[in-house]
Amino acid sequence: MISVYLDAGAVQVREEARPERPEGFALIRPILMGICNTDLELQRGYYGFAGVPGHEFVGEVVEADTQDWVGKRVVGEINLACGACAWCRRDLGRHCPSRSVLGIVRHPGAFREFLTLPGRNLHALPDDLPTERAVFAEPLAAACEILDQVALPCGAEIAVLGDGKLGLLIALVLNAHGYRVRQFGRHPEKLEIARDAGVDTTPAPGQFEWVVDATGSAEGLREAVGMTRPRGTIILKSTVHGLVGVDTAPVIVNEITLVGSRCGRFEPALDLLTRGLIPVDRMVSDRLPLAEAPRAFEKAARKGVLKVLLG
Amino acid sequence: MISVYLDAGAVQVREEARPERPEGFALIRPILMGICNTDLELQRGYYGFAGVPGHEFVGEVVEADTQDWVGKRVVGEINLACGACAWCRRDLGRHCPSRSVLGIVRHPGAFREFLTLPGRNLHALPDDLPTERAVFAEPLAAACEILDQVALPCGAEIAVLGDGKLGLLIALVLNAHGYRVRQFGRHPEKLEIARDAGVDTTPAPGQFEWVVDATGSAEGLREAVGMTRPRGTIILKSTVHGLVGVDTAPVIVNEITLVGSRCGRFEPALDLLTRGLIPVDRMVSDRLPLAEAPRAFEKAARKGVLKVLLG
Repeated sequence: MISVYLDAGAVQVREEARPERPEGFALIRPILMGICNTDLELQRGYYGFAGVPGHEFVGEVVEADTQDWVGKRVVGEINLACGACAWCRRDLGRHCPSRSVLGIVRHPGAFREFLTLPGRNLHALPDDLPTERAVFAEPLAAACEILDQVALPCGAEIAVLGDGKLGLLIALVLNAHGYRVRQFGRHPEKLEIARDAGVDTTPAPGQFEWVVDATGSAEGLREAVGMTRPRGTIILKSTVHGLVGVDTAPVIVNEITLVGSRCGRFEPALDLLTRGLIPVDRMVSDRLPLAEAPRAFEKAARKGVLKVLLG
Repeated sequence: MISVYLDAGAVQVREEARPERPEGFALIRPILMGICNTDLELQRGYYGFAGVPGHEFVGEVVEADTQDWVGKRVVGEINLACGACAWCRRDLGRHCPSRSVLGIVRHPGAFREFLTLPGRNLHALPDDLPTERAVFAEPLAAACEILDQVALPCGAEIAVLGDGKLGLLIALVLNAHGYRVRQFGRHPEKLEIARDAGVDTTPAPGQFEWVVDATGSAEGLREAVGMTRPRGTIILKSTVHGLVGVDTAPVIVNEITLVGSRCGRFEPALDLLTRGLIPVDRMVSDRLPLAEAPRAFEKAARKGVLKVLLG
């Protein structure tokens, strides 16, 4: 089978053996995969990664412990947790200290013809959820995570900084939940997707009680601090590498709360996608076969490009 | 009357006219004053401050709009708020955008023979609360603020980083509220005060769900991030000047919450002091007359020194 391999900045397509299926795992044939910014960062060598990337996918189960999974169309949670620790017992395997992570930490990713994941990581897709939409389940779950972490009051106005893929999904999720969302970004063609869904994208100065930093830049956090009211909350969705210079004085004087936010539960994301509440179709910039992964990565890294799919 | 004046690093004692008492204000004669780290920072020229410092005091009301205040022993809230804005209406004048701050922002401080404060800022002291203890009301209120901001569960274990004045008050307040407190610091003689009150001061590695950074240093925040469990909370009590380099990646990956925390309500602080639950007496390093403020500032800045009182 072929697989995509990242090493020292290069994206290669290699031939390799089909993976063994350990007990408790399913063998899955990916149908459609999504390139995430994290994949581009792995390519650039952050985290010293070398291996098979990919953690956004829809696939078909080929082999499993029990026959009822076989043939099912699935998405999969990316954290492979121990299932036994205090975190796992609280249903928070996403924070299991001994976890590996699909395509990121010690478990080869989804950009190959066959992958393995524990059966408990899988979610079978409803028949009325198209594959092209379901492939957004993982990043959409990360956007939904905000609603699990902070108690946004009814009618809250929320500023979302950044109009990349995650910024758009966050704005669309909050908008779909009835909040008043104002999105800030530099790409009119991206903002238009949010605007058409009801998000306010007219630039407006002012301060907000709720601010989401999804800029992906160190300046984003500094800007967010300046846009947040006393006693307000900033949700941190931008992974920035290395030390970020933050002026903590206004954070303390204004008693601002910062909340780090990462992966989320798949259930609400799949529900939103099934109900057609998130116009993810408009976020697809291109679709290329797996064998053309090097070109797909190149394209995904271009300015102004949103989601590039493989498969 | 004499007053202490800070300008370009120098601490001077000057003669000046007794301040006028505007309507709504009280004229107060300070009996005992405390030097805070903020005063030392003002001296160093942070915030471009030049003027009369001092915001920790116990005083006697000399003149007021109504006679019933006269002769009363009082402490005073340091934020002079407008009383009319949305913040003030929510009883959060501490965040009033047009506030001035006693001895810090646009209102001369308490280190003089007479000061003025709005009548609504004053708290009359119970007869059984000694002046030597009441002078800790303002910094103790800042320590209590943590309990107003985060919902600490019963039995929570809290790490307090830093054994300076504020770190000690925080550890003592949390300890007095039944929490399991572990304090980290570098001064055995300071930690002893907390230990004798029941705080665990034996150094122990490990991770905590609740961490308070009261180190006053940029390294403190980085250390706090490393000591915090996934989904844990760090309360930021250290005002550090300029940009602080923070690695936001573990904050996001571990979904850590950071809460900026500043001034607090005086009521719970006065209550704790009246009930004798905080051994502040042991935190006094020296007491000098107001006229000897230059020497008192010098002493307060020395390593290992805790509270230096004036008056």
